[in-house]
Amino acid sequence: MIGGGSWATAILKILSEQSVRIRWWLRDPKTVAHVQQYAHNPRYLSDVSLDRTKITPTTDLKEALSDADIVVLAVPAAFVEDALAGLGPADFRGKLVVSAIKGMIPESHCLVTDLLEDRYGVAERDLCIIAGPCHAEEVALERQSYLTLAGPDEAQAHRMADLMRCRYVSTATSPDLRGIEYAAVLKNVYAIACGICHGLGYGDNFQAILVANALREIGTFLDAVCPTHRNLNESAYVGDLLVTAYSQFSRNRTFGNMIGRGYSVKSAQFEMDMVAEGYYAVKSIHELIKRHRLVMPITQAVYRILYDRVSPNLEVTLLKNYLR
Amino acid sequence: MIGGGSWATAILKILSEQSVRIRWWLRDPKTVAHVQQYAHNPRYLSDVSLDRTKITPTTDLKEALSDADIVVLAVPAAFVEDALAGLGPADFRGKLVVSAIKGMIPESHCLVTDLLEDRYGVAERDLCIIAGPCHAEEVALERQSYLTLAGPDEAQAHRMADLMRCRYVSTATSPDLRGIEYAAVLKNVYAIACGICHGLGYGDNFQAILVANALREIGTFLDAVCPTHRNLNESAYVGDLLVTAYSQFSRNRTFGNMIGRGYSVKSAQFEMDMVAEGYYAVKSIHELIKRHRLVMPITQAVYRILYDRVSPNLEVTLLKNYLR
Repeated sequence: MIGGGSWATAILKILSEQSVRIRWWLRDPKTVAHVQQYAHNPRYLSDVSLDRTKITPTTDLKEALSDADIVVLAVPAAFVEDALAGLGPADFRGKLVVSAIKGMIPESHCLVTDLLEDRYGVAERDLCIIAGPCHAEEVALERQSYLTLAGPDEAQAHRMADLMRCRYVSTATSPDLRGIEYAAVLKNVYAIACGICHGLGYGDNFQAILVANALREIGTFLDAVCPTHRNLNESAYVGDLLVTAYSQFSRNRTFGNMIGRGYSVKSAQFEMDMVAEGYYAVKSIHELIKRHRLVMPITQAVYRILYDRVSPNLEVTLLKNYLR
Repeated sequence: MIGGGSWATAILKILSEQSVRIRWWLRDPKTVAHVQQYAHNPRYLSDVSLDRTKITPTTDLKEALSDADIVVLAVPAAFVEDALAGLGPADFRGKLVVSAIKGMIPESHCLVTDLLEDRYGVAERDLCIIAGPCHAEEVALERQSYLTLAGPDEAQAHRMADLMRCRYVSTATSPDLRGIEYAAVLKNVYAIACGICHGLGYGDNFQAILVANALREIGTFLDAVCPTHRNLNESAYVGDLLVTAYSQFSRNRTFGNMIGRGYSVKSAQFEMDMVAEGYYAVKSIHELIKRHRLVMPITQAVYRILYDRVSPNLEVTLLKNYLR
């Protein structure tokens, strides 16, 4: 397991329901020492007891990878390249590489699985992603959740689905790796949009319209960028959008809400002390929108609000004419 | 306008933005007197000022209908037959008849527009429905809302859409009268399901799965009962489902929540003092499910909880296996 945030911690909890041995890479030696001593993540989901007979924290990533069959990545997308610095294709050879990241690599504007394929030589069939709808906070509370494991190789996806299934988690599989990965990225942008509109004083009626239009925008994007036959009303697409757009746990929605209430991007980020993935993602998605000449009014409005500093009030007033 | 509830009041407010003359039928002479004196509905949305130069309340339905071009129905589905008692086809001849009702006629298990066609001889082309996503409470606050006017005759639907468009309401049209009418009925059943699960302690992750599956159930139902080419991700379908399933204003969700917490149907209805349309609707939908031999696990679970008194906890535990 690579990553020490709340989603990483929730996945560790789920995996520990099975008979597994997990090396858990953490950057900070103090966190490693804390986990060793107290069996809790000191910063995220700290109520979750971590089973020390199954989970061994370490700061040595190369060593942690050396005898792993499966590598799970759960760091913010913006830090992936940093976390994997010093590693090469040899470190991933023959392993199933699972991304639990819902963001895009900055600058190169590519998906995490694209980076794994292109730079680390991971074969397409050895890639898999963990998709929601799933808030880490509710996994910590053992509230019934559903995950979709998406990968082009059915056997690998099923292998991962078996590992993640437990008393409080049901699993499904899908072959649509890229489609679900992009949908998971986009939903963070729409959660920001929902937060912005809420912050501006728009109500539930408007939010429902916004989410319905967001779902159709996801369709527009996926049909252009990775076309295949898919049903957006499956849980990995629409369910993931809903849980993020409507939930109080969503940091992207909270971030948007602050923007809508007049905070600057900097002060909102400072106040939250958490990364809102959608802030970075919308920049990459905006590049792809230009490249494919797409019309995605909600995403484009969020981009202009966050990066061109256009007034949220003005953007949403204009946006109203595009929605239906 | 036939009906004195909150949705009727909200529609009156919207229509009063235009240059119109409206006869408003109310059963209770005391309510008529109150409206005449104070220009407010005493019981519902009583903050809304009603323009007495445009709206004339009356208890005489036959007279109110006599010189109307358009008839809008906005009473609970269970009371439609009662409200229209004494009227016949002659009273509706040559008029556009618009239903704002989101429920089914008890006993006969038919839609309101079916009743209007079969018993009152209203031609298909003279029928139209007003569909959400739209809470009356937010219309009262003039929060931006979107309505879909659905009817087989494009000109009639546009005529109604023009009348309902104003500063805070945007409108769209659709030819899918029955599909949207059924979707509006079904969403109340799913709002009850969401409330039940919330009352039982299920969280946001599960709610997202429930709504995603509900959307697919709506597809199953519509494909069997009134097949046509339609996109469920348009606002009149998915948006209406969302606003009802997620909003605090939803009386169906509130009703379900009480059932999930252990209230009996009777005591929940008594406490709320409002009609949860979904309670009646699920009985009719259940008949259609049997007739068409459909598999709709959420709807069937709600039916068994409300009418067969099966434990909500047991039903939702069983339901978990059908969701994905």
